Amino acid sequence: MDIGTTPSVWDESLPDAVEIIEVGPRDGFQILPEFIDTSLKIRVIESLIKAGVQRIEVTSFVHPKAVPQMRDADELAETVRRNGCQCFAMVPNLIGAERALEAGVEMLNLVVSASETHNQSNVRRSIDDSLSSFEAVFGLAEGAGVPVRASIATVFGCPFEGDVPIDNVLRVGHKLVEMGCVELNLCDTTGMANPRQVAHVARWVLNEFSQNGTLATSIAMHFHNTRGAGMANLLSAMQNGITSFETSFGGLGGCPFAPGAAGNVCTEDAVHMLHDMDVATGIDLPRLLNVVQQAEQALDMTFPGQVIKAGRSCELHPLPRRT
Amino acid sequence: MDIGTTPSVWDESLPDAVEIIEVGPRDGFQILPEFIDTSLKIRVIESLIKAGVQRIEVTSFVHPKAVPQMRDADELAETVRRNGCQCFAMVPNLIGAERALEAGVEMLNLVVSASETHNQSNVRRSIDDSLSSFEAVFGLAEGAGVPVRASIATVFGCPFEGDVPIDNVLRVGHKLVEMGCVELNLCDTTGMANPRQVAHVARWVLNEFSQNGTLATSIAMHFHNTRGAGMANLLSAMQNGITSFETSFGGLGGCPFAPGAAGNVCTEDAVHMLHDMDVATGIDLPRLLNVVQQAEQALDMTFPGQVIKAGRSCELHPLPRRT
Repeated sequence: MDIGTTPSVWDESLPDAVEIIEVGPRDGFQILPEFIDTSLKIRVIESLIKAGVQRIEVTSFVHPKAVPQMRDADELAETVRRNGCQCFAMVPNLIGAERALEAGVEMLNLVVSASETHNQSNVRRSIDDSLSSFEAVFGLAEGAGVPVRASIATVFGCPFEGDVPIDNVLRVGHKLVEMGCVELNLCDTTGMANPRQVAHVARWVLNEFSQNGTLATSIAMHFHNTRGAGMANLLSAMQNGITSFETSFGGLGGCPFAPGAAGNVCTEDAVHMLHDMDVATGIDLPRLLNVVQQAEQALDMTFPGQVIKAGRSCELHPLPRRT
Repeated sequence: MDIGTTPSVWDESLPDAVEIIEVGPRDGFQILPEFIDTSLKIRVIESLIKAGVQRIEVTSFVHPKAVPQMRDADELAETVRRNGCQCFAMVPNLIGAERALEAGVEMLNLVVSASETHNQSNVRRSIDDSLSSFEAVFGLAEGAGVPVRASIATVFGCPFEGDVPIDNVLRVGHKLVEMGCVELNLCDTTGMANPRQVAHVARWVLNEFSQNGTLATSIAMHFHNTRGAGMANLLSAMQNGITSFETSFGGLGGCPFAPGAAGNVCTEDAVHMLHDMDVATGIDLPRLLNVVQQAEQALDMTFPGQVIKAGRSCELHPLPRRT
């Protein structure tokens, strides 16, 4: 390696700013077994907005029997004071989309897997059947003037199939973009990604959806820390052109195949690292840390996030007294 | 970012192989309050060696009253069957060095901080007094034909002073190299580093100690996951020319200023990520995971490491049965 010339290349690969998309109220809360009061959920969401979070996935309009934790989706989405924050919600199907639009959600988030077995396991239909069913959702949303994004699951590996060919991801992505999808969110659903792979996927996807220098759709990425590589994957993605990341406050979330394993990349840990690297997020970190600490107390849990335990790197300690 | 040309730069920044230096038996065990039986320590160390670890910091020859956990340093170092693994030990001073050489340790590891207040707090003397005291250790070791390395603490930030100027690190490094130090181990003692800073320090130090294209001393780095950025820092260091890393099995270790915070970068999580990236370590990962799981049971603890909870990314799951 040429030490003399590498510095600028490495530094130039970093953006000045990235967008942090908070998904804790959906992806984090949905795995918690005890129902969380709607008022507490709303308080957390509104506090996150006040801390500067500009996009939040607030809930999921799944069937209440499938995910009882999300049974308050309608009331929650109607009640949250958005104050300029984009509040979007996951919708599994047309009925969910109807409910979400009724509740005034500003963007819909569809979900489909890049691997056949995972899609079958997750929504009991083939990838093509999922994509076909989305036509009606796109139609409905267009009529309401509400944009639709989509999360593609198992992009970096499938827990049932292993490696997922990039062609599968691109095929699903193109179908979604043809239907009018404004954002593709590429998910490492069970934490199988590694930084070299992330670099390849990032460049491949950005290249694939570029048209005359502009992107046909926004690209976001969603990493889990299931095997400890979440933050390294985020760094790699950022170095390779991705500037939108889904993260979860406190590191809430999880993996059904790994009880006790870490969940999503932790919002405040990511923001802490990014700010220390001079990459802006628009988030007020001390305020965010207060929100997370209050949520931890209110939920009576220990979150996996690290910065709430250690404090920020800029917070100095008094010299220990010698006895 | 130019997607067309960046790929090769990113990939070319990765080495084919790195060296993993296991420090759990010293840096991990020393923070555990209950004394661990010497026989168990030896069993863990020998199992790590059998899993392919090629360098291990086995203990510390500190005064038994200062760190009671390390009171068996002499017996342990004498007993371990090395089988080709380099077993080195921390020595705080001349007395420790004499004990370590007596016990047949193959390399000594000195420690000095890059920040004055941390050195004062850690060893109750100035940096210059520490460096002066090392002269006798280097002399003794040279007489015994045993090489000396040194760990420089607080390279990436000091919990009492904050930012640590790179000039402090280089000054300490040069003094050590002049005395004959074969390896500088740059430590993020309390987990304050970020990947951009790591890139700068890595390039600066590699450049500073290069003489006609070869390094005057080996360079290793030691990261903590105190604020969640440990693996991202390791990735950044590796992309910027560092190929030796100290890690701790299970992620054992910690930070006196952050109770409950994560410790060192976890050996098996790092090895998992590196192997998935096609960066070799010489370690047999399945065997390492067995060792760590057995150690976790024997110590009756839950380690912070992730891969022991989630399994390797290549371990697939059966499709869930539909009822």
